[in-house]
Amino acid sequence: MADKKKRRRADSDSESASQPFKNLLKSDDQILQILKSFTTCFSSSSTSKPLTLADLALSTTCREVSDLSLSSVQSAIESLVLQLAHQILSGQGFSFTVPSRSSSNQLYVPELDRIVLRDKSTVRPFSHISSVRKTTITSKILSLVHQLCLKNIHVTKRDLFYTDVKLFQDQIQSDAVLDDVSCMLGCTRSSLNVIAAEKGVVVGRLIFSDNGDMIDCTKMGMGGKAIPPNIDRVGDMQSDALFILLVEKDAAYIRLAEDRFYNRFPCIIVTAKGQPDVATRLFLRKMKTELKLPVLALVDSDPYGLKILSVYGCGSKNMSYDSANLTTPDIKWLGIRPSDLDKYKIPEQCRLPMTEQDIKTGKDLLEEDFVKKNPGWVEELNLMVKTRQKAEIQALSSFGFQYLSEVYLPLKLQQQDWL
Amino acid sequence: MADKKKRRRADSDSESASQPFKNLLKSDDQILQILKSFTTCFSSSSTSKPLTLADLALSTTCREVSDLSLSSVQSAIESLVLQLAHQILSGQGFSFTVPSRSSSNQLYVPELDRIVLRDKSTVRPFSHISSVRKTTITSKILSLVHQLCLKNIHVTKRDLFYTDVKLFQDQIQSDAVLDDVSCMLGCTRSSLNVIAAEKGVVVGRLIFSDNGDMIDCTKMGMGGKAIPPNIDRVGDMQSDALFILLVEKDAAYIRLAEDRFYNRFPCIIVTAKGQPDVATRLFLRKMKTELKLPVLALVDSDPYGLKILSVYGCGSKNMSYDSANLTTPDIKWLGIRPSDLDKYKIPEQCRLPMTEQDIKTGKDLLEEDFVKKNPGWVEELNLMVKTRQKAEIQALSSFGFQYLSEVYLPLKLQQQDWL
Repeated sequence: MADKKKRRRADSDSESASQPFKNLLKSDDQILQILKSFTTCFSSSSTSKPLTLADLALSTTCREVSDLSLSSVQSAIESLVLQLAHQILSGQGFSFTVPSRSSSNQLYVPELDRIVLRDKSTVRPFSHISSVRKTTITSKILSLVHQLCLKNIHVTKRDLFYTDVKLFQDQIQSDAVLDDVSCMLGCTRSSLNVIAAEKGVVVGRLIFSDNGDMIDCTKMGMGGKAIPPNIDRVGDMQSDALFILLVEKDAAYIRLAEDRFYNRFPCIIVTAKGQPDVATRLFLRKMKTELKLPVLALVDSDPYGLKILSVYGCGSKNMSYDSANLTTPDIKWLGIRPSDLDKYKIPEQCRLPMTEQDIKTGKDLLEEDFVKKNPGWVEELNLMVKTRQKAEIQALSSFGFQYLSEVYLPLKLQQQDWL
Repeated sequence: MADKKKRRRADSDSESASQPFKNLLKSDDQILQILKSFTTCFSSSSTSKPLTLADLALSTTCREVSDLSLSSVQSAIESLVLQLAHQILSGQGFSFTVPSRSSSNQLYVPELDRIVLRDKSTVRPFSHISSVRKTTITSKILSLVHQLCLKNIHVTKRDLFYTDVKLFQDQIQSDAVLDDVSCMLGCTRSSLNVIAAEKGVVVGRLIFSDNGDMIDCTKMGMGGKAIPPNIDRVGDMQSDALFILLVEKDAAYIRLAEDRFYNRFPCIIVTAKGQPDVATRLFLRKMKTELKLPVLALVDSDPYGLKILSVYGCGSKNMSYDSANLTTPDIKWLGIRPSDLDKYKIPEQCRLPMTEQDIKTGKDLLEEDFVKKNPGWVEELNLMVKTRQKAEIQALSSFGFQYLSEVYLPLKLQQQDWL
């Protein structure tokens, strides 16, 4: 008898040794209480109207685009063409005035916590050898977008390119002019009905409509729902979730979907499977805005994990003209953070040495304004660069495949351990 | 009046000039009749039992794996370990006997139309410097899979790797041994509950269950349903489709999903967005087998398009041991075929010159048995290599973005133009 008892105790000891900190976990009800008060407090604070360029008196020196209806885009193109005709008839020649999207024309605005575009423009004359091709491409793209408006259909950037391979030569050229056209018309790229390939998935406590069909993301099995490429046909979002869990990678997403983590702690789980694509960024922003839920990010503990978080949060330089629509402010860095490696005793053999390139990327990030404004992030990033160690979310598998969903995440939530 | 009439005729002339062959299209009802008789004829012919290795008297010289239940996998591991213990106790030392997966041990069987593995094996002794690591890795993977059986959960290959980075060093090593373990136990990799990241999507006339949730793929908006990573939790497939449309790329998939092509011609549309992954291959096979529907493939007109078709159809060399479960026999090559470029008057500026590498890949394909056995494919591939021209599905966009869904595909179906 005594023997048996001892063995049982030894078993549970070894369990907690192999799954460190499991003994710190409170009951799910207690963790839920903690989350509920956080979410309530969060949603009441986020009802304050977000700052705009106008509030900061930047609306004349910075440029932003907005979502326009198809008919407004159509009218904008038609008046632009009319204006060009007048210009030509009055002897001024044929040229477009195109907002500059170069990095010298970009600005990080701390109050908004995102990158925006300044107001510099360049003139693109048809009658100059250096710009005749680009002017022709611009006219062609305007005419294609006008067609899309008339037909009310969506196409991909690849489709656009293929309408005239000889003219565009390379998809990079038609893609770049497409962004120019967005800036010229003052509308988002989604308003042009040109979409990028989808790759994100969502699962959990969310109901929404996709092109008229109601989707219940708790009933999407393990595969989840593919995030629609066209946000303008997404609507009617409803949810009883307490937070949104933004996951960098597929493997962690699959673990959480199979364990139906969203039923234990009501949440919506979303991933773009690596680099954030436009569709997933728009979808995340829409969820955050409509549902007023906090967003917690689960990314790898390496410079690219933080970089990915920053694209969701502050935008990419390439599309800074549309940062107001593409970014989700105030994303919390839940983990895996550099300090977690020691805190959660991630075994040495599951940590990887950083390469010189990793170190450089880490140091570059330390110079970025969006990192600097968050002292907690600076501290973590300094630790990463100092220890020269990185780890993927999967490193937690060394404590058992379900350690992520059964111990690590619940404990993080219980301790409100995010930055 | 006369003027107006003339103009209208001119309009419709220019419409048919810009959308070649639109005037050849019969009514949808007529095309549906053609499809119905094809599908009926197809499904009655496909009820004959497929050939097996045993039918060809190859079961002793070739090796195949099959789906095993979790408990069978568990027992198989336990008896293997018991056998090893006996081996060690009887003084024969510790070694695994592992089926060889090298290309010299692979065989294309024309009657089966797929690649299979021969029966050669190698011995992996623990007490030899060249194999001690691999033997240790094999033991570790066996023990991890045994854990998965006990817990009945799925993990990704990345998760497995991360349980002991120091031992595996590189994910390629743990992945390779995982395939070895499948062969040793005689079961599919899915039976081991180890899955690859999902990337496929499906939309159209299909209802199925994913992990207990019923999914109606006509109600998945434009985004479609993400194909579940674990096929063993997929079931209850129902459909009123007449065929399955297998699409190579995302852009074409999005076009067809937005146009709800599956409502005009009842079908199921599926894509792996490029290279076929295991989950999409398993899903396609399951649809074809359970629903007895013909599969029509829409791929780029280049050697890689045909290569992708062949992986769905005959399998990849890497996983030839599991070809019986992963391959979907008798996929029809609908388009874009090299002969379509002239037939559909694809403009010169939308065709691309093939690189030397493309030509080499094309010539290599001509040597492959699975191409040789289909004279129509050989002819098309010869034409491609001779003209040195390739084109993506998107090349059809030069006739308008909806030419694919409104003219090209309906005409292909009407003319039963597949090989």
